[in-house]
Amino acid sequence: MPRVVVDVMPKPEILDPQGKAVLGALPRLGFSGVTDVRQGKRFELEVAGEVTDAVLEDVRRMAETLLSNPVIESFTVHVDDAVEDQPAVTGTAAGS
Amino acid sequence: MPRVVVDVMPKPEILDPQGKAVLGALPRLGFSGVTDVRQGKRFELEVAGEVTDAVLEDVRRMAETLLSNPVIESFTVHVDDAVEDQPAVTGTAAGS
Repeated sequence: MPRVVVDVMPKPEILDPQGKAVLGALPRLGFSGVTDVRQGKRFELEVAGEVTDAVLEDVRRMAETLLSNPVIESFTVHVDDAVEDQPAVTGTAAGS
Repeated sequence: MPRVVVDVMPKPEILDPQGKAVLGALPRLGFSGVTDVRQGKRFELEVAGEVTDAVLEDVRRMAETLLSNPVIESFTVHVDDAVEDQPAVTGTAAGS
């Protein structure tokens, strides 16, 4: 089943306290080299049938009205066929 | 500056009340055709210098220890060069 992904991120001019908290925690955990962190949301929508331009336009309106707050957040919409095949590969393999 | 993206999603077998809330709200807003919604988190990490394999391995350890809960969430790490160029294109253009 095709999957459409909506990424919602705080706009660059908006303060991002969650991202700042992560950024502050990294050195305490021994990590260095990261200069900024922004935290946003990721939505994976499964759609019935083919992903046509009309479907993507629909998803954009969902993102505008429900998934994001356009005043403080920007979003991108893209089709992701690979998600279904490898949902946890990186997460699982990272322990090795 | 290179940007590394960490996507964190609830594992398939884990209940996702936020995603279910979005799924339930869509028909009330007049949207149809979406059969499932999963909500996760997206982190954008700006790193100083080049993104080497060692940096990606570091980011994977950050994802394991700080950004995700490996018991209930899986994550993927990937480099995203395009984010900087077009942070809000889709979100801005969607109103047209």
